[in-house]
Amino acid sequence: MIPVLDGAAPVSLADMREVAVRLLEPAHRDFVEGGAGDERTLRANALAFEGARLLPRVLRGVGPRDLTTSLLGDVLSMPVLVAPTAFHRLAHPDGETATARGVAAAGTVMVVSMAATRTLEDVAASFEDARAGSAPGALWFQLYPQPDAAFTAALVRRAESAGCRALVVTVDSPVLGRRERDLRNGFLDLPPGLACENLRDPTGRVRSIAMDDTLDWDRIARLRDATRLPVVLKGVLHPADAALAVECGADAVWVSNHGGRQLDGVPAPLTALPAVVDAVGGRVPVILDGGVRRGVDALVAMALGADAVAVGRPVVWGLAAGGEGGVRAVLDLLRAELDTACALAGVRRPADATPDLIAPDLIAPDLIAPGATVRADRGRPW
Amino acid sequence: MIPVLDGAAPVSLADMREVAVRLLEPAHRDFVEGGAGDERTLRANALAFEGARLLPRVLRGVGPRDLTTSLLGDVLSMPVLVAPTAFHRLAHPDGETATARGVAAAGTVMVVSMAATRTLEDVAASFEDARAGSAPGALWFQLYPQPDAAFTAALVRRAESAGCRALVVTVDSPVLGRRERDLRNGFLDLPPGLACENLRDPTGRVRSIAMDDTLDWDRIARLRDATRLPVVLKGVLHPADAALAVECGADAVWVSNHGGRQLDGVPAPLTALPAVVDAVGGRVPVILDGGVRRGVDALVAMALGADAVAVGRPVVWGLAAGGEGGVRAVLDLLRAELDTACALAGVRRPADATPDLIAPDLIAPDLIAPGATVRADRGRPW
Amino acid sequence: MIPVLDGAAPVSLADMREVAVRLLEPAHRDFVEGGAGDERTLRANALAFEGARLLPRVLRGVGPRDLTTSLLGDVLSMPVLVAPTAFHRLAHPDGETATARGVAAAGTVMVVSMAATRTLEDVAASFEDARAGSAPGALWFQLYPQPDAAFTAALVRRAESAGCRALVVTVDSPVLGRRERDLRNGFLDLPPGLACENLRDPTGRVRSIAMDDTLDWDRIARLRDATRLPVVLKGVLHPADAALAVECGADAVWVSNHGGRQLDGVPAPLTALPAVVDAVGGRVPVILDGGVRRGVDALVAMALGADAVAVGRPVVWGLAAGGEGGVRAVLDLLRAELDTACALAGVRRPADATPDLIAPDLIAPDLIAPGATVRADRGRPW
Amino acid sequence: MIPVLDGAAPVSLADMREVAVRLLEPAHRDFVEGGAGDERTLRANALAFEGARLLPRVLRGVGPRDLTTSLLGDVLSMPVLVAPTAFHRLAHPDGETATARGVAAAGTVMVVSMAATRTLEDVAASFEDARAGSAPGALWFQLYPQPDAAFTAALVRRAESAGCRALVVTVDSPVLGRRERDLRNGFLDLPPGLACENLRDPTGRVRSIAMDDTLDWDRIARLRDATRLPVVLKGVLHPADAALAVECGADAVWVSNHGGRQLDGVPAPLTALPAVVDAVGGRVPVILDGGVRRGVDALVAMALGADAVAVGRPVVWGLAAGGEGGVRAVLDLLRAELDTACALAGVRRPADATPDLIAPDLIAPDLIAPGATVRADRGRPW
Repeated sequence: MIPVLDGAAPVSLADMREVAVRLLEPAHRDFVEGGAGDERTLRANALAFEGARLLPRVLRGVGPRDLTTSLLGDVLSMPVLVAPTAFHRLAHPDGETATARGVAAAGTVMVVSMAATRTLEDVAASFEDARAGSAPGALWFQLYPQPDAAFTAALVRRAESAGCRALVVTVDSPVLGRRERDLRNGFLDLPPGLACENLRDPTGRVRSIAMDDTLDWDRIARLRDATRLPVVLKGVLHPADAALAVECGADAVWVSNHGGRQLDGVPAPLTALPAVVDAVGGRVPVILDGGVRRGVDALVAMALGADAVAVGRPVVWGLAAGGEGGVRAVLDLLRAELDTACALAGVRRPADATPDLIAPDLIAPDLIAPGATVRADRGRPW
Repeated sequence: MIPVLDGAAPVSLADMREVAVRLLEPAHRDFVEGGAGDERTLRANALAFEGARLLPRVLRGVGPRDLTTSLLGDVLSMPVLVAPTAFHRLAHPDGETATARGVAAAGTVMVVSMAATRTLEDVAASFEDARAGSAPGALWFQLYPQPDAAFTAALVRRAESAGCRALVVTVDSPVLGRRERDLRNGFLDLPPGLACENLRDPTGRVRSIAMDDTLDWDRIARLRDATRLPVVLKGVLHPADAALAVECGADAVWVSNHGGRQLDGVPAPLTALPAVVDAVGGRVPVILDGGVRRGVDALVAMALGADAVAVGRPVVWGLAAGGEGGVRAVLDLLRAELDTACALAGVRRPADATPDLIAPDLIAPDLIAPGATVRADRGRPW
Repeated sequence: MIPVLDGAAPVSLADMREVAVRLLEPAHRDFVEGGAGDERTLRANALAFEGARLLPRVLRGVGPRDLTTSLLGDVLSMPVLVAPTAFHRLAHPDGETATARGVAAAGTVMVVSMAATRTLEDVAASFEDARAGSAPGALWFQLYPQPDAAFTAALVRRAESAGCRALVVTVDSPVLGRRERDLRNGFLDLPPGLACENLRDPTGRVRSIAMDDTLDWDRIARLRDATRLPVVLKGVLHPADAALAVECGADAVWVSNHGGRQLDGVPAPLTALPAVVDAVGGRVPVILDGGVRRGVDALVAMALGADAVAVGRPVVWGLAAGGEGGVRAVLDLLRAELDTACALAGVRRPADATPDLIAPDLIAPDLIAPGATVRADRGRPW
Repeated sequence: MIPVLDGAAPVSLADMREVAVRLLEPAHRDFVEGGAGDERTLRANALAFEGARLLPRVLRGVGPRDLTTSLLGDVLSMPVLVAPTAFHRLAHPDGETATARGVAAAGTVMVVSMAATRTLEDVAASFEDARAGSAPGALWFQLYPQPDAAFTAALVRRAESAGCRALVVTVDSPVLGRRERDLRNGFLDLPPGLACENLRDPTGRVRSIAMDDTLDWDRIARLRDATRLPVVLKGVLHPADAALAVECGADAVWVSNHGGRQLDGVPAPLTALPAVVDAVGGRVPVILDGGVRRGVDALVAMALGADAVAVGRPVVWGLAAGGEGGVRAVLDLLRAELDTACALAGVRRPADATPDLIAPDLIAPDLIAPGATVRADRGRPW
């Protein structure tokens, strides 16, 4: 299925969003699109990139760009990962298996959400099936460590067995953020027939995912020692936590505010990035998500020290708009845009982008215009 | 009475405001909602919080939060007080006694306005009645010192006798601010049947509250010496005044611009807070009101050095929307939001929030976007 | 005639503007309201005050305020002058004589425009007639020095003879600014029956006012030596020019951008003020116009070092809305607001406002929000 | 043909745009008006000038202004060049020959685009025909160096033979920017009958213009050695590239972001200008385009160190609105505005504008209000 907007192929992620929001049930659309509280942070994520400015270099004769990226031992076709997002069967009947096929075709990393509505094994099978042999790309698994240590350990074993290449531990969710669209819509449970398939126990019962407010660095250290997989800590914004993550043995730090869905009022990841990069000091890779909607956004983040970025909602838009094909279209659009951005910025590889491309004062704090609307907010009402 | 918005319980203070503004008489709604002059400061109060950014800490294993707070010898269920606001019988037939019941149930401090439309004694009786034994919470009394020293002294005695635990002396009102909505509406007097009951003299006549432009530090010092109650000075914005307050023996400094109702053009309290905190230097507690509409707002203020915050208009919204139950609902929403914010910011107690959670440049002066509108301004017109 | 807005007295200058714009012919309204070019500077003038923040002092026991102000040997009822504006008969049949009566009643300075549509002598007679004996207030005369030195000298003599107490020499107009509303409206000449009466020669012919691009410091020095009146230079923004003005013997410096009507793109006077005040160093008074619409605006300017402010368009609004009574109402509103602002800021006299009332970073450059709209822009379209 | 807007002559470039956008085919209008990606940079270009502030000097007795400017050996009637823009026959049947006549009449430089729809020889003939003898003005030729070195060399020879006085080498286009309006409109080819006439080979076939991502400094150096014409490098934003350009022998540096049509997310040229001027250090002239819509914009750029500015879209507006007459009207408006701006800023010649006219903090980074709209965005929808 090929996504179509007013008779033509979407030319940007914003177009893909248009297609998706017309197709999604309103309550599901709100679940995907919404954030916590007043959505101050949700808007900030987009504003930070809208206000960022990159100084391009010219006449570098870069020739064809090389977007391939190595990350935690895997090769990716580009430094753009698919962030974990929940409940893909809300967007498309096939759910995460369609996502997996699209991501595999695009040759990058899909971080399978613990709240997937397909089993990890099904997702992994689809991913391998769609991937051409040893082409780039990999599955990672996102984990909320559960109070039930045995259950958590079993999940880690399943991820290892399914061929996941890294564990992404979400650390910004000791409790669930207050997402008021969902509260207003009464969207508190999955519709009949849908479930978090990776929390089903042998009796068929599906556990709820527990947000655990006792999760601490010790638990992370124990988890780190209990798996052979690299452990990525997702949800870090404070530079002190970034330093602690490295000291605790994390294999990567993922700067994120959970897409503005947890604590409303925190800064955009892009705003928090430079201090985190300083604190990490190159000891482990830094990944960033939140507001990346354009290839140039990825390049801006990398110029400021990120090793890769991730996108969440756009992949769901693609999935809703066109299933596997829509997911791939979203990633292909980002690849094409990033390729153009690299060419026009004078870097052959995204990792060649240096901080001097972001001149002093050319990065806009996300808080500069509290009342501002972003381009993507405009246009059609729904 | 349970407030309902379009058939459901309000999920935020903004929702509660929606309910209230539909119920209030237009002139009374304007009295509650309006500010002085062009309402530059009124907008600034909200913008300051909308633009603030908090850097959360992760993996601190905080467990259940403890929001209880000690303030001037009282224990509160949370560091959110009810600021004094006038004329509660405009919002609900029961007026301040309903407010008192709601606040008592919520276990925090109600600062009874000198312009209450119920007697202090009635309010105190309701408060004690609704409070479960020695549960947290207390009544404080707000005072405009009157030129008639004997009358002022008598009021202080009444407050002491009624069990009030502190005097909140308003110092930002040597004259009344120009509230142009009221001038346009001709809203200059209370409707028949309503009166400032605490200004009624033995003959039944009700005095007007005098704004006294000769009030000075000497008068405060004398008042301080004439009561056993702690004296809080409310309406301080300049750091030099904060220092003078401490030197004059004030037991707490309350940073406030009177909800934008006195001098239009003064900064948001949040903007003024850091310099005041520096000037006070921890010698007495610092309280802040003005624009607090979210739990995270309270946490931001506390990270910047406030010991507690207060809310004014939201309590009136709750009162209008649902009487005692609406007041309690407002405070319960704030408690739930603050609890979530603490969990997500990695602090067990709000007072554990440290200034490093507000990274440099992550606090937006309220003046950054003079023409900006805040989220709460949008939506339904009335 | 008492101005009325929707059945009630205007409570602010914005209200008065509402009345006026409904009464003025569209092309005349545009002449009054418009600025040069894109009106970037016109908007900046208002934004600068909208974004300014004043830190009030409390408990100073100021008692009744004293707004009287001495300026160049005259006593004014308040530090708010009436700036010179052209063509008052466009706004009201009586023109400048009505303005003069209103200003005299208000006890302040009217700067009679060289482009007045009544003779200076008529204006002076009306002013003296309406002024109660030796009450505060004075007439000053605004001059564009003309290439015809004899004519210029004759005008200065007329101003002296008419009892004008100062000459305000406009220095920002070597050529006329491009006011595109007037160009679009074809408003290039006064309607039949109206003329610049002070440029009428003995034959009855009316000269055009020449904008003279050869006017320089030498000419100012010669003018200075040729009159016993104090000479005020109006239209200074650059601090180097402020210093030159003092060295050239100017008796006061008037910071102004001609209400945004000359060079679009220059800063708001408030933004330019601090550097000018530094350059002048207290040697002569500094006056400011441009965007003053509130009493607190005057206080902000004075805290930053101005000795007085002036208002232009608001006086024309008052004149259009109610003739003499409207002019007086505008000035009375400003006086009432300034009185309130002084009381609430803790200063008995406006001149007591010190720079510390404007905390660092609490003055917003007018350029912060290029696309922002100001409050006064909103509301009714015309 | 004289452009007319609602029955009157346009008084500003914004008016001219109004006329043009009503006349252009929607897809052609989008081609002219649009930018790359989200058009963040396109908006930034305008915002940078809208937010800039110039401090005028007074009483300098400048007399009549002298706008003539020498640049690379040519004399221009003013320091405003016509930037190269493609496909003028989309705007007017005569295309670039009409443009040339208008520019010649205005006495400035027309940079003929390599993507012109008329032959360079026809354009040159029209230019010379319309120019009065040795009046100011010149043709320059814009070049995308092609991978086919012989073809590139032949083009350079044609430009020399046609009397072009400089080569403007575009260096910001190793690939074509993603212009999404064109993608959505399917505007990928010129309509039948129109072609890039300077890419026609002897057989009549028209080559495509190749964007060459291998173009580098060595190729520029070789081109520099292969022509007697001055070589201008257009599309520099990074100060390091400006320094390299001078070292590579460029005769001028042209600060540009290609009108926001190449890499979306780069800063406005005005924002990038000061660092470029520092890097160039006066060794060669600096030209700037991007967002210049007013005479004062040119003066701001020159105060910050530019030697001249260029306009692109406005010339196409003029061409669409009135052919040769419209082009001349656009340039005459800019000249009139610049003349007024110089008079009002106190400079006889634009080059006399010094950096102190732009006070510290009086230049607004273009990123300050990411969500802001600029004046030109408002008004009529189409």
